[in-house]
Amino acid sequence: MTLLFQAEGWDPAPWLETLSRQAPEREIRLWPQIGNANEIDYALVWKPPAELLAGLPALKVIFSLGAGVDHLLRLPNLPPEIPIVRVSDADLTQRMSEYVMLHVLRHHRRRRDHAALQAGRQWRELSQPAAGEVRVGVMGLGVLGRDAALKLAAMGFQVAGWSRSPKRIDGIECYAGAGELDDFLARTDILVCLLPLTPDTKGLLNRDLIRGLARDGAGKGPALINAGRGGVQVERDILAALDAGELYEATLDVFETEPLPANSPLWSHERVTITPHDAAPSTPAGICGAILKQIESFERGGALDNLVDRRRGY
Amino acid sequence: MTLLFQAEGWDPAPWLETLSRQAPEREIRLWPQIGNANEIDYALVWKPPAELLAGLPALKVIFSLGAGVDHLLRLPNLPPEIPIVRVSDADLTQRMSEYVMLHVLRHHRRRRDHAALQAGRQWRELSQPAAGEVRVGVMGLGVLGRDAALKLAAMGFQVAGWSRSPKRIDGIECYAGAGELDDFLARTDILVCLLPLTPDTKGLLNRDLIRGLARDGAGKGPALINAGRGGVQVERDILAALDAGELYEATLDVFETEPLPANSPLWSHERVTITPHDAAPSTPAGICGAILKQIESFERGGALDNLVDRRRGY
Repeated sequence: MTLLFQAEGWDPAPWLETLSRQAPEREIRLWPQIGNANEIDYALVWKPPAELLAGLPALKVIFSLGAGVDHLLRLPNLPPEIPIVRVSDADLTQRMSEYVMLHVLRHHRRRRDHAALQAGRQWRELSQPAAGEVRVGVMGLGVLGRDAALKLAAMGFQVAGWSRSPKRIDGIECYAGAGELDDFLARTDILVCLLPLTPDTKGLLNRDLIRGLARDGAGKGPALINAGRGGVQVERDILAALDAGELYEATLDVFETEPLPANSPLWSHERVTITPHDAAPSTPAGICGAILKQIESFERGGALDNLVDRRRGY
Repeated sequence: MTLLFQAEGWDPAPWLETLSRQAPEREIRLWPQIGNANEIDYALVWKPPAELLAGLPALKVIFSLGAGVDHLLRLPNLPPEIPIVRVSDADLTQRMSEYVMLHVLRHHRRRRDHAALQAGRQWRELSQPAAGEVRVGVMGLGVLGRDAALKLAAMGFQVAGWSRSPKRIDGIECYAGAGELDDFLARTDILVCLLPLTPDTKGLLNRDLIRGLARDGAGKGPALINAGRGGVQVERDILAALDAGELYEATLDVFETEPLPANSPLWSHERVTITPHDAAPSTPAGICGAILKQIESFERGGALDNLVDRRRGY
């Protein structure tokens, strides 16, 4: 049972080493050396070239090596019947929650203002609201959003979530669908976006949405943290909202174009924090382990977890 | 039943307003206008002048307005028989855990390195170990240390604690006493200090202690976070350890002299984060509520919580 590995822009060496170690009995091929295409059973891919998957007649399952799958669903010749599995391992979930917690706390505890005081050698206590007075809103309540929301609630924040379809999570106020978006935004001081990129979410984080956020927070204005997908945000609008005082801070891990071009004004905006799409990096050990476990279960006739619904787009 | 309020260096207005609102039936006096000293039943104090408490013959309980009580125990004429209560409310505990979580995550997720990359408009993913590979050690396992340790464990870190007397906390490896300090340090990548200042802890965070921390962490070296008391640290030694590469980062909320003098080299050290003793600020609503609740219980013959043991020093 042969695996093909392809990951645009990544160093494949640690992945091949991990796969060989975790599954010594399997043959692993590294794109573009695919050999006899009829022998490839499973494809582990990240941003594959347009024709790759359509040219594998024996393919049984496609595994996306990152949590997003828009890179697959936009392929013109994506084989229509083959199941697509989105990676989701506990390690990735935990790393995303670390990122969300860190950047929510940075805003909440006024890191930017503290750093400015330190630079000026000024000793001045800053007023800081209690977490219980601060309303965090998490867009996207899949595995990642749910874990982040629960951890934020455990830190004392008032947490609500918004998702496409209705969800129920203990201790989290859940909103769903376009009809409840305005109410969700109006009660949100710190907005965390973990949404997938779909036709419905493309450009959703725009000026109108930002203007709908709570204006009466205990801080200096609302904050935005996007660690979902860059295509969900409109960077021009985020910059305009920051400069107009409609948004106090933005922390972005994802961008309309990645790598973020060196001439983007986001890099040097004094109230923007940039990270290079490393909020929840896909690490070989966790990801390969989760994929191999699914393959073994699949070969014993079991069901696949984290299957992508192609109509929903995630 | 009359209360006296005294807090060196604080604006008393919000405290008096809160006490009057929460206990309208009580007389509240603001030092130095103490009136007839025989009428003062309770003293709510922070760094009181040497003779104040000794001059209150009817005093029943002393409430320290901050979690530290070294400011009281070093008074030469502290009345020997009067119970001293240390404030501890859920709000203060939660704020301290926010601070600890924020600064542990800042180190863990390499905020300093990310900020440098952003300043240089460089898109480069940084290797970041999983929380499960990182060992956090919390010194001081009172109400604050215990809550911080449990929240760090819930984020996935390997957490151990060290305290003067043996403790048991589920999920936390507990070390105790001078005899187990070296083993605790040797397994610690990120050291969080929440110790009280006592004759035993004075100067404990010195060069020797720092040299005992783990040298094989996944980061660039160990990190120190002190949000306990400034007298526990030796600032000269912390600076020397940073410059010698024995310590990678230090985050300090407390100092040997507060406010931190403008000429301290800590202010401008590139790997030191300074906050102005505002990790867990005493806010009027929470603190006054907790004190008034204790007074009411005491007057009904109930026991006082969070009593200070004068021999132990906290």
